[in-house]
Amino acid sequence: MHLAAFLNAGPQGTVGWRHPDAGDGFLDAEHYVQIARILEDACFDLAFVPDSLAVPRSLGDTFDPAVRWGTGTPRLDPLPVITIMAAATRHLGLAATVSTGYHEPYNLARTFATLDHLTGGRAGWNVVTSFQDAEAQNFGQDALPDRTARYDRAEEFLEVTARLWDSWSDDVLIRDKGSGTFGRPEEVSAIDHDGAHFRVRGPLGVPRPPQGYPVVIQAGASPSGRDFAARWADVIFCSHESLESAVDFARDIRARVAARGRDPEQVRILPAATTVVGSDARDARRRHGEFVDLVAPEAGLSRMAYHVNVDLTEYDLDGPLPELEEVGVDGHYREILEFARREELTIREIGKWYGARTEGNMVGSPTDIADTMERWLEAGAADGFMIQATHVPAAFGDFAGEVVPELRRRGLIRSDYSGTTLRDHLGLRRPEPGEWRQRAGSQRSKELS
Amino acid sequence: MHLAAFLNAGPQGTVGWRHPDAGDGFLDAEHYVQIARILEDACFDLAFVPDSLAVPRSLGDTFDPAVRWGTGTPRLDPLPVITIMAAATRHLGLAATVSTGYHEPYNLARTFATLDHLTGGRAGWNVVTSFQDAEAQNFGQDALPDRTARYDRAEEFLEVTARLWDSWSDDVLIRDKGSGTFGRPEEVSAIDHDGAHFRVRGPLGVPRPPQGYPVVIQAGASPSGRDFAARWADVIFCSHESLESAVDFARDIRARVAARGRDPEQVRILPAATTVVGSDARDARRRHGEFVDLVAPEAGLSRMAYHVNVDLTEYDLDGPLPELEEVGVDGHYREILEFARREELTIREIGKWYGARTEGNMVGSPTDIADTMERWLEAGAADGFMIQATHVPAAFGDFAGEVVPELRRRGLIRSDYSGTTLRDHLGLRRPEPGEWRQRAGSQRSKELS
Ligand SMILES: Cc1cc2nc3c(=O)[nH]c(=O)nc-3n(C[C@H](O)[C@H](O)[C@H](O)COP(=O)(O)O)c2cc1C
Ligand SMILES: Cc1cc2nc3c(=O)[nH]c(=O)nc-3n(C[C@H](O)[C@H](O)[C@H](O)COP(=O)(O)O)c2cc1C
Repeated sequence: MHLAAFLNAGPQGTVGWRHPDAGDGFLDAEHYVQIARILEDACFDLAFVPDSLAVPRSLGDTFDPAVRWGTGTPRLDPLPVITIMAAATRHLGLAATVSTGYHEPYNLARTFATLDHLTGGRAGWNVVTSFQDAEAQNFGQDALPDRTARYDRAEEFLEVTARLWDSWSDDVLIRDKGSGTFGRPEEVSAIDHDGAHFRVRGPLGVPRPPQGYPVVIQAGASPSGRDFAARWADVIFCSHESLESAVDFARDIRARVAARGRDPEQVRILPAATTVVGSDARDARRRHGEFVDLVAPEAGLSRMAYHVNVDLTEYDLDGPLPELEEVGVDGHYREILEFARREELTIREIGKWYGARTEGNMVGSPTDIADTMERWLEAGAADGFMIQATHVPAAFGDFAGEVVPELRRRGLIRSDYSGTTLRDHLGLRRPEPGEWRQRAGSQRSKELS
Repeated sequence: MHLAAFLNAGPQGTVGWRHPDAGDGFLDAEHYVQIARILEDACFDLAFVPDSLAVPRSLGDTFDPAVRWGTGTPRLDPLPVITIMAAATRHLGLAATVSTGYHEPYNLARTFATLDHLTGGRAGWNVVTSFQDAEAQNFGQDALPDRTARYDRAEEFLEVTARLWDSWSDDVLIRDKGSGTFGRPEEVSAIDHDGAHFRVRGPLGVPRPPQGYPVVIQAGASPSGRDFAARWADVIFCSHESLESAVDFARDIRARVAARGRDPEQVRILPAATTVVGSDARDARRRHGEFVDLVAPEAGLSRMAYHVNVDLTEYDLDGPLPELEEVGVDGHYREILEFARREELTIREIGKWYGARTEGNMVGSPTDIADTMERWLEAGAADGFMIQATHVPAAFGDFAGEVVPELRRRGLIRSDYSGTTLRDHLGLRRPEPGEWRQRAGSQRSKELS
């Protein structure tokens, strides 16, 4: 079973900063170093930093709620953050989110190749296509391109980056001081890519990464997102309110992976799990209750408006969820609204619940949480979990100190790293040079057929 | 007197990797950590990493010479490299080169703001507009835009980044856990920039950097480059073959800075100085001779072809420099050809000389080198130097171990850091919010007049 940690490069979640035990050093290197050490001591496979290229806007297209309540802002660039964490660790894998919408493939391929070299093969890239108009508006666009256009660009982006990673064979460098021969030019090739979105001559200025390709992570929920993940992802993140939907999702993803000729065993599915650990179930519920108390309903609702594009602050806070027009929400976000309706929550309760959301319902004693995790594993819903902390560093400390020993006792997780790269930790093989052909190629032949 | 270190994120110079004492860890974090520690122990103001967004092409538009001789390739992304160096130090300033030609201002403003926060105010940005067609060809262009177009984009790029750094006042964050108030939205503003090259709504997702703006470094040699530097740069790098041309350059720059209403005392001019230290002048010349011996003339010539766009390998290696058609070379690169002609070098000698070039003629005993540096300071040619090492880490160790004590003895440099930020080290004040207006505005009024 694999463990990833979800870590904002800023305050956590909707009100994580407000917890009495929350650190407030999220602009300082020391904060991230401290968390990295907790995770490495617990032998996590990786830490992962999400991203967004704008201050979140909601409730009438303003950034006021985000700044007032500290939800999703500030948000440091994840890449320097994971680099700082890498410098403080030796084994922990480190993944950053970068959007294919607002970067250039040459630069990004080089950044991740660099990180993979400097970390000895511990780099991962969470590929997103962005989802807010506010992000598009920081890059010369009026609104986000539609999903088809976004994934179309992402597809070509991945093809170009993979070809750039392959533009040096694994055997270029000689460094023979005697003869003065540094490298073998015949083992380096231009890529001469000329596509709908990008024209890139290559080669990359950096040798092939230690992992071949850095670990590619994806969290697409829509059919296009799932297809994209099935082609390119080594790790798939997801978020579910129930075991049933997690099982359906995993089954669907593995079928899509197999349909593209890839080995479904070479893809790791990690659902999000927000854990709240107590000495027993009652103690955990009490702790969770204290956390819910910190959430201003408006903060949760503004966060929800931002995620789901539904502004519920216009309604009576103590009234029920109204009938809503079709709001263009799909994937795991639709589940959120369905849950609220099923549980008959008032709008105030929805705000508090959303602001203190605990994915996977992992509130309990270490035994309870380990039981739930085992159930998810056995049902085929997960190869491990992406652990979300209500507040940091403390809640990661709780997880590491209380749940990790229980998971070790059951033989579910390692008590020492056996490999050195992130692919080693995840049990994923190193891609062969030219593997992009198989991944991108299957897409092409699909389009041609 | 200020000290910067010039450090490639790859092999040094033309043949630095081939020196018997050169380390070969340039793909490993440990290599950069070791150098960072040498520089911090010597109380350098900053380390600076140059960049280029392509494998250098020369001699018939091929990358073969670069790979064969290890000149300018591989080249890691400078940003993770300086982040690794930052994690290993507490005072050293850290600057990375990033091109305005092939990045987005929102992303770059955020990256440098992030670095400035994580390092407690030690970040610097060397702004370049790129100079190779090979770079343009990795970003969908056939050739580099002309200089006017490049600096036009750079000008708007700097305006946008400065406005984004100012989009949070210095007093946004409250973080009052009791009331749940995180920040003051009224102290955050969109920028709504709508220009010829960029449309950026803002605000930035990160608070105003500790230094206000990270330190801006520039190395323009042409009139447009110098004007750009005069408007925006805190630090100016240059490279000269003679003291006279260095004095002329410094005088010209200070006049341009003053003409734009900025204080010429608030700009630091740091010429490049490649030092070769010996026990006495003869020993230093012997060491330099050993270094020259390592240079294959073709390696030096391919490097020169790349820099100056003149391919001399077509001529008899033992013949003289031919008459050349006007080759569009200007700034400090023209000096190189003039020097070769004046000294009546053969083409083979030019190749070896260029490959082992020692800017500022700083080959000598510690006393000789300190004398030369003092002469440059007194002549008004320099506020300090950008030290280039023939090979690393060893030559930085030589400089730190032998020249630094002599400079300290003369009271020219610090023996301990007194401030914490890079601006502190350089004696530069923190920019006021809104200072971009003065810088960009003066350009506008110039255009209007
Ligand atoms: C666990 C998880 C983490 C995510 N992290 C990010 C992120 O950091 N940045 C981002 O823009 N989108 C993020 N997303 C959104 C996904 O990339 C994706 O856009 C979303 O799941 C909707 O799927 P679709 O793109 O197929 O419509 C995340 C989604 C999940 C489930
Ligand atoms: C010391 C020094 C360092 C430089 N570093 C870089 C660099 O890392 N990347 C780059 O593209 N250009 C670099 N340049 C080139 C300058 O940015 C500039 O393009 C060049 O000096 C020519 O001036 P111009 O742009 O005004 O024509 C450097 C120049 C000097 C003198």
